[in-house]
Amino acid sequence: MQEQEDTKWMQCALEQARMGLGLTSPNPPVGAVIVRNGALLGQGFHEKAGEAHAERRAIADARSRGNAGLMKGATIYVTLEPCSTVGRTPACTDAIIEAGLARVVYGSTDPDMRHQGRADALLRAAGIEVCPGVCKAACDRFLRSWFHAVMTGRPWVTAKVATTLDGRMTRRQSFWLSGVKTLQYAHQLRLESDAILIGGNTLRTDDPQLTIRTPLKTPSPRKEQPWRIVLTNNMLSLPPMAKLFSDKYHKRTLVWEDVRDLRGLLNELYTRYGIVNLMLECGGKLLRRFLEEGLVNEWMQSISPMVGAGPDHVVPGDFLPQEFIFQREELIECERDIIIRGTLG
Amino acid sequence: MQEQEDTKWMQCALEQARMGLGLTSPNPPVGAVIVRNGALLGQGFHEKAGEAHAERRAIADARSRGNAGLMKGATIYVTLEPCSTVGRTPACTDAIIEAGLARVVYGSTDPDMRHQGRADALLRAAGIEVCPGVCKAACDRFLRSWFHAVMTGRPWVTAKVATTLDGRMTRRQSFWLSGVKTLQYAHQLRLESDAILIGGNTLRTDDPQLTIRTPLKTPSPRKEQPWRIVLTNNMLSLPPMAKLFSDKYHKRTLVWEDVRDLRGLLNELYTRYGIVNLMLECGGKLLRRFLEEGLVNEWMQSISPMVGAGPDHVVPGDFLPQEFIFQREELIECERDIIIRGTLG
Repeated sequence: MQEQEDTKWMQCALEQARMGLGLTSPNPPVGAVIVRNGALLGQGFHEKAGEAHAERRAIADARSRGNAGLMKGATIYVTLEPCSTVGRTPACTDAIIEAGLARVVYGSTDPDMRHQGRADALLRAAGIEVCPGVCKAACDRFLRSWFHAVMTGRPWVTAKVATTLDGRMTRRQSFWLSGVKTLQYAHQLRLESDAILIGGNTLRTDDPQLTIRTPLKTPSPRKEQPWRIVLTNNMLSLPPMAKLFSDKYHKRTLVWEDVRDLRGLLNELYTRYGIVNLMLECGGKLLRRFLEEGLVNEWMQSISPMVGAGPDHVVPGDFLPQEFIFQREELIECERDIIIRGTLG
Repeated sequence: MQEQEDTKWMQCALEQARMGLGLTSPNPPVGAVIVRNGALLGQGFHEKAGEAHAERRAIADARSRGNAGLMKGATIYVTLEPCSTVGRTPACTDAIIEAGLARVVYGSTDPDMRHQGRADALLRAAGIEVCPGVCKAACDRFLRSWFHAVMTGRPWVTAKVATTLDGRMTRRQSFWLSGVKTLQYAHQLRLESDAILIGGNTLRTDDPQLTIRTPLKTPSPRKEQPWRIVLTNNMLSLPPMAKLFSDKYHKRTLVWEDVRDLRGLLNELYTRYGIVNLMLECGGKLLRRFLEEGLVNEWMQSISPMVGAGPDHVVPGDFLPQEFIFQREELIECERDIIIRGTLG
């Protein structure tokens, strides 16, 4: 019973945490709920680095709902081990003790060895029951990019590629490969990213905006446009009137020239700009460099229903005289493979 | 009511027809059931060119079940308009009249303009009710490759490709791209094919068997191994001990040298060898030639969970020093696109 109850409320804390996705870097998105006798007293999530953590937001929320008195003896569920040290904000363990909470249930453990388990000791010394590791797998999964950044000093890198069935990234006649829904999905990914990286070629060829325009879900009003990062061999070759340099987010554009050490660059992106989630929207050559260095963590590919050859893919040579449109009739998950079957018209 | 009844029994006839898939070329796979007062009297499917058609098989089946007397006044459901002319076997219209059947329900119309509608007239003249076009879309879809062959004089061509996520057909270290289930599926496709075509390069590199070995469903004992067709620029360059020339099906291997006219070749495959369903299992260069000529009707692609570069694909250049295995976490049908998302390890 207690276990089911704990799982259920930790899911609620995770839902809170999700509301902070894409907003909190270099901090992790964390959620918290405060519960007593099966009733929710307050909830909150961390919204921005430098602002209150989830625990303090939940406590404040409970107070604002007139539940201050009920917090004595209540349980707080947090997706990540509460912080126990003073950073840009005071330690959450203090707030928990001060609010009179009787029990702390959390999911993931702080990856920083200097802090790990410290909250447990402090809270227990104050007579508070501590239950670590509830829904740990789900919380760890949710925080994996942040864990990666903390442990390696580099952002979690997601390669986003859009290809045709024959593995091309371009078409002969049309600019776009992807359908409207797919683009929305791609914009949703941007919403969860702190930065988007392209090469000079993509900038010159596509003149992209790399902004969040049509995501699936309405973004938080506090979401900033992601950093737009351009790697080029020759800064002077970039058109100064490109959108990235002239639109209203131009201050969110960063250019690096002749980067040899991608690993070092990523470290700079994390330590200097607090970038935890980096999305690659570059072309194949630059993507290859990231792959060669083993720096790609996640791969997101949309495959559009076309076969038309072009440079660099399974049907070699130049573009075919005609582009064939594939009509899918079957999509089968065949163990780890996907089988798609249909006609070419 | 009658309509529902007709639909239901035509589905049964289609199920019969499916049992002939891959067996009947150059004839179409056809199924028939005979029904009276909601009870099945007999059923059958065409099994091999030169042997009895589905209608005669169903009538014979009804007789062998002791239902000869009940056939007077019964309905026969056939997936394709009954033949009305004597070919290698006598006309089915005669058998239907002789059996005393009262009603003929069929799905697809004979594509041969010389025969089209002829059965209707003959049967009606004999006092038999004729209902054409029941489940026409499903029957037409099922017979589309045969229609194509009859109308164009060329086989229906299915390109089967197996690629990695980055659109390669090869891996650096391992011969196989596809998982076991995917291979079973590919063998199932072979079972539905009359012939498989490769180029000399594939023969020299892979030394394939191109036989049906591990299909998803047990093949009919009457299914012959598909023809194995090799197109080469230089007959003498092919290793004489290759499996295609030395295994026990070596008589099912055909080699063409220096074919310039693919369209003419396909016509020969249909008219001389009765090949209606041709599967391409060739490499990219030859596949490209078929695409260039607009000769590919169907596309079947299995995408295996790897990213590793190699020649000809979305990540250009030579093989990466390391192959990354993709772990799929999401598969989304996004309108006509497919989105797969996961980690690279």
